[in-house]
Amino acid sequence: MEYSKKTRVGFIGLGIMGRNMAGHVLAAGHPLAVYNRSRDKAAELLAKGARWCDTPGDVAAQSDVVITMVGFPRDVEEVWLGPDGVLSRARDALLIDMTTSSPELARRIAGVAATRHCEALDAPVSGGEIGARDAKLSIMVGGSEQAFAQALPILKLMGTKVVRQGEAGAGQHTKMCNQIVIASTIMGVCEGIAYGQAAGLHLPTVLQSIGAGAAGGFQLNVLGAKIIDGDFAPGFFIEHFVKDLGIALEEAKAMELELPGLALSRKLYARLIEQGHGRLGTQALYKSYGARA
Amino acid sequence: MEYSKKTRVGFIGLGIMGRNMAGHVLAAGHPLAVYNRSRDKAAELLAKGARWCDTPGDVAAQSDVVITMVGFPRDVEEVWLGPDGVLSRARDALLIDMTTSSPELARRIAGVAATRHCEALDAPVSGGEIGARDAKLSIMVGGSEQAFAQALPILKLMGTKVVRQGEAGAGQHTKMCNQIVIASTIMGVCEGIAYGQAAGLHLPTVLQSIGAGAAGGFQLNVLGAKIIDGDFAPGFFIEHFVKDLGIALEEAKAMELELPGLALSRKLYARLIEQGHGRLGTQALYKSYGARA
Repeated sequence: MEYSKKTRVGFIGLGIMGRNMAGHVLAAGHPLAVYNRSRDKAAELLAKGARWCDTPGDVAAQSDVVITMVGFPRDVEEVWLGPDGVLSRARDALLIDMTTSSPELARRIAGVAATRHCEALDAPVSGGEIGARDAKLSIMVGGSEQAFAQALPILKLMGTKVVRQGEAGAGQHTKMCNQIVIASTIMGVCEGIAYGQAAGLHLPTVLQSIGAGAAGGFQLNVLGAKIIDGDFAPGFFIEHFVKDLGIALEEAKAMELELPGLALSRKLYARLIEQGHGRLGTQALYKSYGARA
Repeated sequence: MEYSKKTRVGFIGLGIMGRNMAGHVLAAGHPLAVYNRSRDKAAELLAKGARWCDTPGDVAAQSDVVITMVGFPRDVEEVWLGPDGVLSRARDALLIDMTTSSPELARRIAGVAATRHCEALDAPVSGGEIGARDAKLSIMVGGSEQAFAQALPILKLMGTKVVRQGEAGAGQHTKMCNQIVIASTIMGVCEGIAYGQAAGLHLPTVLQSIGAGAAGGFQLNVLGAKIIDGDFAPGFFIEHFVKDLGIALEEAKAMELELPGLALSRKLYARLIEQGHGRLGTQALYKSYGARA
């Protein structure tokens, strides 16, 4: 595949993240074919000139580059490996899964892709809705150097930090590192704030002191400030985060690696889902702490 | 007390932090009286014009402002409330404990100080040796507004961020918030890196991707980079950190607040001390994780 503005791109999965990302590809002038489980989410892209396809396979049949951004590993499996999936029709194409999914599945997909004369990349992102909207995602890529070089101009339409992390699966593994760090960090942020609340401190003043020091970072300074404001609206859904933590724990187990902080964080989050909080933002972990004011 | 360059300052506790901090006070032109358990650590300050005192009480007897920066709460108790302690001789003085210590002890000291016509502040710091050396500490202060206003010119000699957090004990409580956030954050950093190591990723490249996103912060970007370099030298000793976490857990228990992330982190650190790693830096928590390369 030789990259040009005429390179035909297919985009599958038009949720909050996907439709923002696909919008940048369309805006750059690429012919864009799209598919989504529910068609209504494609409306804005179709109005701007994207073409609708009835199946992932149809998208693949008319694209040089296919990008997927769906929900869970089971969705990835269906969209890629299912009867009407991408790999049922793709031929000499560059295939990129940007869903946060299992490294094992990423390697499996890359194997099948090779039998179809295709190259596959796993390229999960970090940066959330704002990063997707502003094309400022961090994109962590696994796959061959050659496929990475081909994909770079398109990935650069969506992200500012696009880094190849290694062979197939390495993008997903890197995303797992990211989620594992966050899993315990947000727990520390919630516990520190719960303590300050219980101790009767003025929390915005506390944040002023501790946000600038060794405790500081995105989780404390951005999500901690939201917690203090009582704002639990989702930047990133708890139910998606728990999916990621489950993948990470499973992979860690397969590597005989014990990660007790991750296990604890996942347990607390799973309890919040049971309590009906799965569609709140990850900072709602704060609700796990019975701070007495 | 009316502050001027002639205000006589006493400084007790001349470890790595204390002697750097006392140096700034001396450099600003204040007459400085000093005491330390072992005299040799005072040598540099004495050469620059500080006066040696044989007991904390002697320091207090000849100072308008007394500052202490010692190790453990039991040291604070001895230096302040012991037979030759600060409060045995202080009179109409401003007394500031900058040790990270128990909020309960801070309130007790403030009570005794009041009976000696003294004002006491608890003013623990964050920023470590570098912050102390460069006079860029974050200082979290508990005590009366009036005492805080009096102390401010002197505290500003040592720190850039000097914030009153409330009445006696509030400085210590704020420092506990700081340590509680860090306790789980560093655990997340170690687990994320251990996972990446086990998955065979190139860790500096991983840090490039994840350090700029939602996982980013001091613990990942500074201490995580040290872990990747195999550098476990102390910026902050594990044995001091475990002391802080113990105080935090005790206070949380008294408030009937459960903090499982903090408890887990402390357990992992306590094990490292048993294994003889107490004088390594906090990032050596990484040694808890049996990552297979």
